[in-house]
Amino acid sequence: MCELLGMSANTPTDIRFSFSELMQRGGLVGVHCDGWGITFYDGKAERTFKEPDPCSHSLFAKLVSTYPLRSKSIVAHIRQANSGGLRLENTHPFTRHLWRKSWTYAHNGQLANHKKALPISDIMPVGTTDSEWAFCYLMEQLQNHYKKQTPSLVALKYIARKMRNIAKQGVFNAIMTDGKLTIAYCTTELHYITRRAPFSSALLKSLDWEVDFERETSPNDVVTVIATYPLTTNEVWNKMKSNECIVFREGEIIFRKIFK
Amino acid sequence: MCELLGMSANTPTDIRFSFSELMQRGGLVGVHCDGWGITFYDGKAERTFKEPDPCSHSLFAKLVSTYPLRSKSIVAHIRQANSGGLRLENTHPFTRHLWRKSWTYAHNGQLANHKKALPISDIMPVGTTDSEWAFCYLMEQLQNHYKKQTPSLVALKYIARKMRNIAKQGVFNAIMTDGKLTIAYCTTELHYITRRAPFSSALLKSLDWEVDFERETSPNDVVTVIATYPLTTNEVWNKMKSNECIVFREGEIIFRKIFK
Repeated sequence: MCELLGMSANTPTDIRFSFSELMQRGGLVGVHCDGWGITFYDGKAERTFKEPDPCSHSLFAKLVSTYPLRSKSIVAHIRQANSGGLRLENTHPFTRHLWRKSWTYAHNGQLANHKKALPISDIMPVGTTDSEWAFCYLMEQLQNHYKKQTPSLVALKYIARKMRNIAKQGVFNAIMTDGKLTIAYCTTELHYITRRAPFSSALLKSLDWEVDFERETSPNDVVTVIATYPLTTNEVWNKMKSNECIVFREGEIIFRKIFK
Repeated sequence: MCELLGMSANTPTDIRFSFSELMQRGGLVGVHCDGWGITFYDGKAERTFKEPDPCSHSLFAKLVSTYPLRSKSIVAHIRQANSGGLRLENTHPFTRHLWRKSWTYAHNGQLANHKKALPISDIMPVGTTDSEWAFCYLMEQLQNHYKKQTPSLVALKYIARKMRNIAKQGVFNAIMTDGKLTIAYCTTELHYITRRAPFSSALLKSLDWEVDFERETSPNDVVTVIATYPLTTNEVWNKMKSNECIVFREGEIIFRKIFK
């Protein structure tokens, strides 16, 4: 199964600790993975590193995991292909532009009959995955519904309803951001943890790496990490419910809903 | 002044030799540069590395210049800011999606009165540069003119006419690709060279690096490199004329026009 990783923080934060754990699962301790990608926002723009190869052996992934790129909004993904060949265009995260913003998305799961159930005619996928198709559906629905730029939270509440539509087609765990707000939607497996003062230390599951966040942070920092499975062993992660969606702004929950 | 670099080849080709020369100009031998970026196509998708910092001191740029990423279509840029702050969203190349394709573009020059002369209402820029604005203008014109997907060469011939419009607003040297075809438009400075058998060796201008292409290539390889200024000292580069545009496919010229 693919795995998702997201971050929403109120200060540019280093993701190396969490990404290192994810990277281990991309071909070492996890199932062999068919690609990986990570998107960091820096202001309004994003930069993405991705490869259709296992990240545990990637020189670029190693660089990302050692280079202190800081960001307030991050989306990452390791892929086990189930729809679409092992090509760069099928590698998550995907980015599209709308309303002077970059929108980035990654998905874990499988969708049935997506081309018929989720019609698109304008914003079309480059690759052949059900995941990118669903992303294009979300973007096209958003564009057509509001016509012109709409506040982020209004847009993401609308996206949440459309994600519920998508979830009817199968397994849909997804993270999406416009660089400011981040939405997480869960049908089967998605966890999150919010770290804030007083900070404690955390120990990764697969690596002998413990971080004392007290030393690494400032007292006002709020950092939420979203992941398919908990990345650390000594912290309590929140498991999202089926068809629950949460919107985060600067690490804080600003909207939460469980759809029927 | 910013500098452009592009490549069109009939086989995935390593750009490290040319990029190393460009990188030197981004803060070492050239004027201090305000950012750099490079986009490599891999199949239908592209990956972009960019930073709003001088590339001559960048760890990522160093990695790109040492890691043998091969591609048939490459666009790169080093920036000396004249419009828009030193932020990632103002750093070239820019990418947009249309018709199941990724389109990538970089520009050298300055445009006057671009917001009025080049109206856009749908495909909007994320950053604040005249360059990205002009790119959005090209994409929106293309989208509105053809409504549905059109063969690459037809699309790029149309783009060429619209580039002529843009060039009326100032200096417009630009490279744009859909991953298959590459268009180069020159108003003041743009050169290209096509290397094919029998290959010889080439010596970079700023670095003591000579490559014997005979050893690095196969007899059927055709590789065109486009650059603001010639990158090598011992080869004859073709200087493009004012308002000349050329479309390359797999390294070969397939369309050329000099506009009045």
